[in-house]
Amino acid sequence: MLGNFTYSNPTKIYFGENALDGLYSELPKYGKNVLLVYGGGSIKKNGIYDNVVSILKECGKEIYEDAGVMPNPTVEKLYEGCERAKKGNVDLILAVGGGSVCDYAKAVSVSVHCKEDPWDKYYLRMEDVDNEIIPVGCVLTMVGTGSEMNGGSVITNPTQKLKIGHVFGDNVFPKFSILNPVYTFTLPKYQMTAGFFDIMSHILEQYFSGEDDNTSDYLMEGLLKSLIHSSLIAIDNPKDYEARSNIMWIASWALNTLVAKGKSTDWEVHMIGQSVGAYTDATHGMTLAAVSLPYYRFIMPYGLAKFKRYAVNVWNVDPSGKSDEQVAAEGLEKMEAYMRKIGLVMNISDLGVTEDMIEGIADGTFIMTGGYKVLTHDDVVQILKASMKNNIS
Amino acid sequence: MLGNFTYSNPTKIYFGENALDGLYSELPKYGKNVLLVYGGGSIKKNGIYDNVVSILKECGKEIYEDAGVMPNPTVEKLYEGCERAKKGNVDLILAVGGGSVCDYAKAVSVSVHCKEDPWDKYYLRMEDVDNEIIPVGCVLTMVGTGSEMNGGSVITNPTQKLKIGHVFGDNVFPKFSILNPVYTFTLPKYQMTAGFFDIMSHILEQYFSGEDDNTSDYLMEGLLKSLIHSSLIAIDNPKDYEARSNIMWIASWALNTLVAKGKSTDWEVHMIGQSVGAYTDATHGMTLAAVSLPYYRFIMPYGLAKFKRYAVNVWNVDPSGKSDEQVAAEGLEKMEAYMRKIGLVMNISDLGVTEDMIEGIADGTFIMTGGYKVLTHDDVVQILKASMKNNIS
Repeated sequence: MLGNFTYSNPTKIYFGENALDGLYSELPKYGKNVLLVYGGGSIKKNGIYDNVVSILKECGKEIYEDAGVMPNPTVEKLYEGCERAKKGNVDLILAVGGGSVCDYAKAVSVSVHCKEDPWDKYYLRMEDVDNEIIPVGCVLTMVGTGSEMNGGSVITNPTQKLKIGHVFGDNVFPKFSILNPVYTFTLPKYQMTAGFFDIMSHILEQYFSGEDDNTSDYLMEGLLKSLIHSSLIAIDNPKDYEARSNIMWIASWALNTLVAKGKSTDWEVHMIGQSVGAYTDATHGMTLAAVSLPYYRFIMPYGLAKFKRYAVNVWNVDPSGKSDEQVAAEGLEKMEAYMRKIGLVMNISDLGVTEDMIEGIADGTFIMTGGYKVLTHDDVVQILKASMKNNIS
Repeated sequence: MLGNFTYSNPTKIYFGENALDGLYSELPKYGKNVLLVYGGGSIKKNGIYDNVVSILKECGKEIYEDAGVMPNPTVEKLYEGCERAKKGNVDLILAVGGGSVCDYAKAVSVSVHCKEDPWDKYYLRMEDVDNEIIPVGCVLTMVGTGSEMNGGSVITNPTQKLKIGHVFGDNVFPKFSILNPVYTFTLPKYQMTAGFFDIMSHILEQYFSGEDDNTSDYLMEGLLKSLIHSSLIAIDNPKDYEARSNIMWIASWALNTLVAKGKSTDWEVHMIGQSVGAYTDATHGMTLAAVSLPYYRFIMPYGLAKFKRYAVNVWNVDPSGKSDEQVAAEGLEKMEAYMRKIGLVMNISDLGVTEDMIEGIADGTFIMTGGYKVLTHDDVVQILKASMKNNIS
């Protein structure tokens, strides 16, 4: 059921080869002091850093640097960022990087003026923001998380062994995001391919929930078909601008709240994948790829109608003369062929998982309730075993 | 090509049976004085007026009424609305009605503080807004135009015999819109059905342009399939909440700029249909329905690949063993069968067009350049003749 909901996405997108010029329109809206947030320094090698700094200076901004944001931004780094933002009395936080850098920038934006420990208030207790928020803008260099157009912010507390994501309201969404598909060209192929599946999984984990015919389901089928089409081009030619630009745009819409309207949403694949990641430190998208088919084949009987629809509408399976089970299974076979073709990791053994880890990974898997079956611990073990190399080559 | 673009849609949507409660969240953000804009008074019969007024009063607002907005809001009415808004020193314009009322509210919002004649500046000369804008909120009672989530505003100048639409920037978009599908239940079936085709035409006229595989095309295929699915349910049961709610949501996304990204867009069907409307005063959606198939059959050879894709992806035509022309033609046959099934007017004779009007209608048809063929005057005559009852029953 589409049901009752609110929808709001105030992020302004500048898209295309000249997207960075959007800074000239946006920067004058904010005060003089800018916190420039980025990661490990790859933006210094590819020239994006120089371009951004040059425009900031042209616009008369005072730059306060906050480098070294790690792939899983820590709460210690967050405290450090807040100090820098306070010291610079910053009026805008400009994140230049991928999802982690955007996530971190949002965390700093709500935490600088927080009167207590922001980790306790905004992550442990997940409270709404009631203090001043420093506006965030993003220059995106990697696609996947949708962080450039949503309120998501994941922060890790290594001491407490906790990684918590808070989905903030639209007042915390980036005010603007710069999306230049060319910036994604330099990503190594393994990371690019993993990113494609991360996007696909974002869509599928919202799609495989609920029983009815929401407009959201139809929109997701469109996104999936466009993603499949463009990813097959990009695998052969990673510098195909058209393919990479469509993928960049799909990634934003996969996770900017629109297609979740009226859906219960699942996210169990992310839960299993993240637990695999905790044991192996494997690339996020590859952990999702390695567990997806065993998971979907396990839950297929509980959501058969939707798996049949998926086979027909996304994978063009001809249903005539076949049982629902056959149609649904054929859809997953076509998905498997596609996954092998683009070079995804198809089993968790190849990510470093060994038999002795399986109980632990299952213990660390958070159980969700929005999909077609609420898994038991034994179910997770069974799915993980089916994801091992001896069972799926 | 997806190309270079900006995207921004700051309208906050409250959707569902309890959507009107969104006013409690929104009204406190604005000052005391509210201009309440509506049309012919149907909202007084169905109780929406009373509900809105009661919430406005509960929130301590002073109400300035501006009733009688006509289906094609005139420039004289606009001047009158500006006077009322000035007199009340209003802080918010609340539009309660369909697309015309929303369009009109946006016109007033940019015109009240305009230092010259707003018709000259914003409609004749299409200038950007450089004066104060009074914020607009909408309570939508009819679907179709997407005005609740875009910057479009059409105003008619009867003296100059001009009807001009200005698509304003995101600063003129409604700040919020209330979408309650139940409000659409009372529309007579003829108007409801015409509205369905208006929505379909909005999508098709963006879809049938360009040569490539944009994500926008895939999203539009999703919207079309969802619309076809839900409209077939709504025709049998206009009070099917789920079907009407999906249609209401599709209508917004059909024309809120997203699916136009990377598209050249056509709009020739709207141009021919509007010229038919000028001669017959027929219902807008029905004029589009009556000329669509003759138009699409005429331009099909010039955009064959897209018409084939449309047949396969939207109408599930099996392409095996058929020529591209056959597949494309079969798609339009399936579209015709659907149109007849939901009860659309299939020829312009039934809308009151007679042979002697055809030259005049063709003269009055604005020629667009974004579709698969730029029509000549003779082309339009040929399409109109093919739309007459003796040629299409």
